[in-house]
Amino acid sequence: TFLLDEEKAEAALAAKRVINGRETMTFNLLPLRYQWAYNLYQKMKANHWEPEDIPMQRDAEQWRSDSALSDIDRWIVRMGIGYFSAAEGIVGDNIQHVVRELVTASELKLVLGRHAHEENIHADSLLYMISSLGIDPHECEAMFDDIETIRKKNEFVTRVSRSLRRDLDLTQLENKQLLAKNIFVFGQCMEGTQFYGLFGMILSLYRQGKLTGIGTMFRYTLRDESNHIEVFRNLFLGLIEENPDIWTPAFQQELSDLMEEAITLEKAFIRDCLPVAGLGLSSEEFEQYIDFIADRRLESVGLNPLNQGITNPLPWLAELMDIKKEQNFFEGRVTEYQKSSSLGQVDDDEL
Amino acid sequence: TFLLDEEKAEAALAAKRVINGRETMTFNLLPLRYQWAYNLYQKMKANHWEPEDIPMQRDAEQWRSDSALSDIDRWIVRMGIGYFSAAEGIVGDNIQHVVRELVTASELKLVLGRHAHEENIHADSLLYMISSLGIDPHECEAMFDDIETIRKKNEFVTRVSRSLRRDLDLTQLENKQLLAKNIFVFGQCMEGTQFYGLFGMILSLYRQGKLTGIGTMFRYTLRDESNHIEVFRNLFLGLIEENPDIWTPAFQQELSDLMEEAITLEKAFIRDCLPVAGLGLSSEEFEQYIDFIADRRLESVGLNPLNQGITNPLPWLAELMDIKKEQNFFEGRVTEYQKSSSLGQVDDDEL
Ligand SMILES: [Ca+2]
Ligand SMILES: [Ca+2]
Repeated sequence: TFLLDEEKAEAALAAKRVINGRETMTFNLLPLRYQWAYNLYQKMKANHWEPEDIPMQRDAEQWRSDSALSDIDRWIVRMGIGYFSAAEGIVGDNIQHVVRELVTASELKLVLGRHAHEENIHADSLLYMISSLGIDPHECEAMFDDIETIRKKNEFVTRVSRSLRRDLDLTQLENKQLLAKNIFVFGQCMEGTQFYGLFGMILSLYRQGKLTGIGTMFRYTLRDESNHIEVFRNLFLGLIEENPDIWTPAFQQELSDLMEEAITLEKAFIRDCLPVAGLGLSSEEFEQYIDFIADRRLESVGLNPLNQGITNPLPWLAELMDIKKEQNFFEGRVTEYQKSSSLGQVDDDEL
Repeated sequence: TFLLDEEKAEAALAAKRVINGRETMTFNLLPLRYQWAYNLYQKMKANHWEPEDIPMQRDAEQWRSDSALSDIDRWIVRMGIGYFSAAEGIVGDNIQHVVRELVTASELKLVLGRHAHEENIHADSLLYMISSLGIDPHECEAMFDDIETIRKKNEFVTRVSRSLRRDLDLTQLENKQLLAKNIFVFGQCMEGTQFYGLFGMILSLYRQGKLTGIGTMFRYTLRDESNHIEVFRNLFLGLIEENPDIWTPAFQQELSDLMEEAITLEKAFIRDCLPVAGLGLSSEEFEQYIDFIADRRLESVGLNPLNQGITNPLPWLAELMDIKKEQNFFEGRVTEYQKSSSLGQVDDDEL
């Protein structure tokens, strides 16, 4: 609870908007207009972790062993490192140089700053994986550059980001829609859907007891992602609420089409790069899982699902995404900032 | 130690530059060219703290008590909250929307991301102070808007920041010098010198046993600042080393003049706003302290001091800035991430 001069507080509150609000370089957090942003900021910092918290000796032994891992297993890890190195960079740049610069309310900048910070931690965790296992990062990078289906996934997101990096008149409907599209694509299509193919593969290794240090870091990452998706979802809804002119039937159709494109690209990537069968999974189920998640994302922002009534074909993934249930894996190294209350709240735990 | 393909690693290393290096949205941290950046990133995260770590009950009791604090004491705290709310916002914007966007090497972006994150934590700590003490934030804000000497301090830094927020051709010497000036002004003049008037006042209250929760947060903040100054100092030196054409005698003189202006503005602010005598300090000594710090900043980037041979008139401040020596104040709540090694390394502890 804060003590506020009522009249001034009301004026300050009225001047707060997602976009086109009072422009200030200063950080007037109070009075809070977007309480969800401050709550998410608190939740995110309660989830604080650092890569060095996770012991990697056993992973390193498995990595060197001929019997513990197959070449397929190693391929998946290299692919995960290569893809997420790029993806975390793209997301971090988009937050800091597009979205945070365009929004005007301080508490929105605050939570976006935390979001960007977590991309940093994820990039640093990939570095820790590389150094722990003795992987050549250029090998991961080269894979990444050469593969058409990955290049296309990246092009899909950067095309709604690059054009927004320079002065944008956000009083124009067209530009407001560009920003809304950016927030939808990054939050719901990319972090919300296209990250889940590789997450699924890596957690599948984890489930087999392979590379559980790597798997643990990806589980922490995934918990962070569920908050990132939520940040962008709330930002999107706030933007639409304050600017209802954005929300035309044609625009809704455009977003729905973008999600369909995201799914097509993700499935192409899975078929091309992820040896699903090699981990004992069914390709059909794996692809259905992507459809299932995508529909949850669409519904969460008020759009119709593409596959009404679709069910989750991989319920064990939901289990693994719920960190609370497997605290033993963390060997008592759960970080100081993971208060028990926040451990119980993985919003995405049914996905 | 990282396993690297030598040829590719050399090519990647050669393409890394502070500015005008290989442009990529992806986050290729390896091979590290700027080892200092990764080391500082590690050091900064070892210093991780959150405002809630600091108990505020005693401060709140003192704040409400007529006998525990004077009006001067309360004025200083309101001034500190008002000034730093604005200053942390300006610094965070400058990092995220100017400097991080213009530098090209990933490890530089990584450490700048951590820097921006700490500005977030500082802003959140001011919110925590406001709510713990029941202060009206508009009162702090209004003080801030009305006072000419503060307005001038802010104008001094924003004039080297705003103009850089949009497309800047960094192959032009003039623009490279604009960026170098920005990095010098923010790191050495603002965070490095102009923050120290209020820091000194607040630590002086702390020394008298007043508002030690507030004081503890500012001590943590100050420890972070010493790393921020170091980030910008190394960035500045790297930029000059790779672009020696920047470093003309005229440019050196310009920087020296800017520091002189910064000192003049800080002294005007101190005379105008900080009741130094009210805390039992001498104005002359307090101003000499600003001169002393400013000269350390100038020397640290290869510029001549303005007051050769000047000494530190307030050695007790150096003691208070060295957190290691007073761990008891933290009542065992030193955060998980403050590893003992990093607690021993406050670079600024002689200032
Ligand atoms: Ca993310
Ligand atoms: Ca700072």
